[in-house]
Amino acid sequence: MDDGNSGDFRQRIRESFQKQAAMETIGAELTRVQHGMVDIKLTQQHGILHAGIISAALDSACGFAAYSVIDPDASILTIEFKVNLMSPGRGERFLFRGEVTKPGTTIIVADGRGYAIGDGPAKLIASMTGTMMVIRGREGISG
Amino acid sequence: MDDGNSGDFRQRIRESFQKQAAMETIGAELTRVQHGMVDIKLTQQHGILHAGIISAALDSACGFAAYSVIDPDASILTIEFKVNLMSPGRGERFLFRGEVTKPGTTIIVADGRGYAIGDGPAKLIASMTGTMMVIRGREGISG
Amino acid sequence: MDDGNSGDFRQRIRESFQKQAAMETIGAELTRVQHGMVDIKLTQQHGILHAGIISAALDSACGFAAYSVIDPDASILTIEFKVNLMSPGRGERFLFRGEVTKPGTTIIVADGRGYAIGDGPAKLIASMTGTMMVIRGREGISG
Amino acid sequence: MDDGNSGDFRQRIRESFQKQAAMETIGAELTRVQHGMVDIKLTQQHGILHAGIISAALDSACGFAAYSVIDPDASILTIEFKVNLMSPGRGERFLFRGEVTKPGTTIIVADGRGYAIGDGPAKLIASMTGTMMVIRGREGISG
Repeated sequence: MDDGNSGDFRQRIRESFQKQAAMETIGAELTRVQHGMVDIKLTQQHGILHAGIISAALDSACGFAAYSVIDPDASILTIEFKVNLMSPGRGERFLFRGEVTKPGTTIIVADGRGYAIGDGPAKLIASMTGTMMVIRGREGISG
Repeated sequence: MDDGNSGDFRQRIRESFQKQAAMETIGAELTRVQHGMVDIKLTQQHGILHAGIISAALDSACGFAAYSVIDPDASILTIEFKVNLMSPGRGERFLFRGEVTKPGTTIIVADGRGYAIGDGPAKLIASMTGTMMVIRGREGISG
Repeated sequence: MDDGNSGDFRQRIRESFQKQAAMETIGAELTRVQHGMVDIKLTQQHGILHAGIISAALDSACGFAAYSVIDPDASILTIEFKVNLMSPGRGERFLFRGEVTKPGTTIIVADGRGYAIGDGPAKLIASMTGTMMVIRGREGISG
Repeated sequence: MDDGNSGDFRQRIRESFQKQAAMETIGAELTRVQHGMVDIKLTQQHGILHAGIISAALDSACGFAAYSVIDPDASILTIEFKVNLMSPGRGERFLFRGEVTKPGTTIIVADGRGYAIGDGPAKLIASMTGTMMVIRGREGISG
C-alpha cells in the first residue's frame, strides 16, 4: 500500500502501544510496524496461552494495522471480531500478525494470525477477522 | 432443559472454574450455574474493560454453559467465537452470561452477553456466539 | 423499544421488501414487522435448504429489523455476519426472525434465528449475528 | 500441501459440484481444483450480487477446498461461517477462492475471498472464514 498519507504512523503506533496497559500486562512487544501490517510478540509464556490473551494480542495487531492506514488525527475502534482457535497455544514465544485486508474511510477489515514459535516451523494457533471503525473527532479506544 | 443426565454438573463446573488461573487473574467469580446457563461476574474493575478480558469472560461463560449439558467424563473445547463490542466496557461491575443455544453430541453452540452493572439498568457491552466441540477420552481445555 | 421516531416504518419496510428480487426468487414472505423485529417466512421448499438461502433470509430479517429502528431517510448496509448452521434445513416451511440487539446511530447489531416449522415444535436450524451500518445521504443496499 | 492421500479428489469434487443444484441455479462454474484450494466463477450476473449468493459461492469454495484434503470416503459439513461484505458486488464476472487454512482430522478451517473481475484489477468484494466438520460414515451436505 501507498505510504504517502501517514509519514510518521510508526511513531504514533509505538506511542499508542506503549500506553496500552493490557499489552504490558501480558508481556507483548511491538516488533514490526509497516503500512497495513503489524507484528506483536509474546515471550516468556508458560503453559497454554489463554483464549483471552490470544484475542487481545490478535485484536491489538489488527487494530494497529488498521491504525497504520488512517489519517494521523483519526483513531480505530474494534466493532467486532471472530477468532478461530486452531491448536492449543503451547510454547514460550508467539507471533501475532495483523494485516489490513480492506482499507476504507469508515470501515476497515483486518485479518490476523497467531503462531507458536519454537525450534521447528512456526505453528498456526489462531486466526482473527476483525471489523474496525475509523473514528474522527472523538476519542477512540486505540487512539 | 432437562437436568437428568448430569446430576452434579454444578460441582464439576465450580471445580473446573477454580482451576482456571485466568479467571482468578481477572477477578472473575462464578455466580450462577444452571443446566445450559452460567453467569460470571467481574468486580473491582477500573477504567475500560479490555476486549481480551471481555472475550475471556464470555468464552468462559459460554464454555461452562456447554460444559453443563455434557456427560460427566467429557470436556469442552472452544473452536471459534465471534464477539461484538457494543459499548465501551465502563464500570466497576460486569455480568457475563453464557447460554447453550444448541446442544449436541459433537458440536454445541452457545451465546453470551456481557453487561456493565451500575446504579441504573444493566448496559449491554458485548455479545458472543461460540462454537464448542465436545471432547471425549482426551483432555480438553475447560476440563 | 419505543416506536415514536418511525411512525410508518412498517410501510417502508414492506415496500423495500417487495423491491428485493432475491426475496421473491426464494419465495420469501414478510409476515411480521415490529419495531426492532421482523419475521420472514419461506414456504413450498423442497429438499434441504441451502446455506445461501438461509444466509439470505437471515440477513434480510436482520437488515429489516435494523431498518425498523432508523430514521425514515436513512438506510442499512450489512457490513458482516456470522451464521451457525445447526441442523439440516429440512422441511417445507421456515421462519426467520431478525431482532435488533443493539441499536445505534452508526452501527446496529442484530441477531437472527431460523426455524424449520412442521407438525411438532419449531426446530432451530441456524442463527446469525450481523453488524449493520446506518447509511445517510447516499443509497444503501436495503434502502 | 502433500497430495498423496487423495489421488482423485479433483474428480470427486467435480462430481459433487455438478450435483449441487444451487451452484447450477446461480450459474457457478468450478474453474480450479487443487489440493487445499478451489476456485468458483460466476458469470453473466446482472446488477449487484446478493449477499446470499456471495455466501453460497464462498461457502462452496471453502467447503470444496476442505473436501480436497480429506479421505475419499469422508465428507464435509459447514458448521459456521463469517462473511465480511467489503464492496457492493457490482460486475458481470466474479471469482470466489476457497483455501484451507488449517487442515484437521475433525475440524477444518478454510478462508475464502470473492472478487469482482472486470477490465481493471480484480476488486475484493467479500471474505469468509468457515469452520467445517469432517463427517465419516454418514452422509454430509457436500458429499
